[in-house]
Amino acid sequence: MRKNFGSKAFLYPQPVLIIATYDENGTPDAMNAAWGCICDYDKILLCLSAEHKTVENLLARKAFTVSPADAAHVVAEDYVGVVSANKVPDKFKKAGFHATKSEFVDAPIINELPMTLECVLESFDKETEWVVGKIVNVSAEESVLTDEKIDPAKLQPIAFDPVNYAYHCLGEKVGNAFKDGLTLNQ
Amino acid sequence: MRKNFGSKAFLYPQPVLIIATYDENGTPDAMNAAWGCICDYDKILLCLSAEHKTVENLLARKAFTVSPADAAHVVAEDYVGVVSANKVPDKFKKAGFHATKSEFVDAPIINELPMTLECVLESFDKETEWVVGKIVNVSAEESVLTDEKIDPAKLQPIAFDPVNYAYHCLGEKVGNAFKDGLTLNQ
Repeated sequence: MRKNFGSKAFLYPQPVLIIATYDENGTPDAMNAAWGCICDYDKILLCLSAEHKTVENLLARKAFTVSPADAAHVVAEDYVGVVSANKVPDKFKKAGFHATKSEFVDAPIINELPMTLECVLESFDKETEWVVGKIVNVSAEESVLTDEKIDPAKLQPIAFDPVNYAYHCLGEKVGNAFKDGLTLNQ
Repeated sequence: MRKNFGSKAFLYPQPVLIIATYDENGTPDAMNAAWGCICDYDKILLCLSAEHKTVENLLARKAFTVSPADAAHVVAEDYVGVVSANKVPDKFKKAGFHATKSEFVDAPIINELPMTLECVLESFDKETEWVVGKIVNVSAEESVLTDEKIDPAKLQPIAFDPVNYAYHCLGEKVGNAFKDGLTLNQ
């Protein structure tokens, strides 16, 4: 028997994306979003209300970074999702984050988060509030690599549970993808 | 030290979305996609090449369902992502899936997958190949509920690892979201 829940924004797993930008003074900011995904081979889509300081910043700077939230920093990652930089201008610092400017785009890399997508703004649609970024580079700390490749067992990315308002880490491998070598999505 | 990987469609976690549709004869089809996310309180976005039989079907029927892939059916879920219904018309059956028509939309629910978003087509953009669906209902088997709510520990949704082409189950809870009760995304 199935239970019906009506129209709900329920999906599993949802990512926990930490989006980092510089404001007009070069002060780093960060927020947390679950509504986003890869939307092409070199693009990421984020659904962000225009009220966010992040949106103001990325429209001005034409760049942002996205780091998958990891289990080691879950308290800080939740904090930047709950508190607005419009009210707490130094939220980035209060979260315990430190920034290094990306080599590739005009946006901060959060030193504490080991994997980052460095993006330039491609478009922002005011009606849908969808941000599209072109992924210029992906960087990752050597501490999360195995044989020179990103290893999710070391990265420990977390997922958002939209029903119970919780974060879960990623678990063990349960299978291989593309058993005959074709691509999944195309 | 960070290693740079260049422009890559790397993100963690990525969902494994099993999209089900009826064709013009009422035959159910299913495919597997990692590029999709919630894009509003009642909407889901999927990035799907127009060549897919699924896209032909959902444009004709104006409806589709999305079930998060679960650990129990990983072989079938990978199979429907690798094999095209344009070449193997009975792939749905070959995957071992059985369909029940949704009560709410003109699309099949896959009996074997315990949670499903039932959607009507809102738009398909030929240029970006983005499908937007309005979520009319979310349904879930009682077997994956705890206290009447969807429980990810029972659902066992899987995530796609785009670097190592693997599927991982969701692991343990590592924290609560929205500690002060504000919403994460808005």
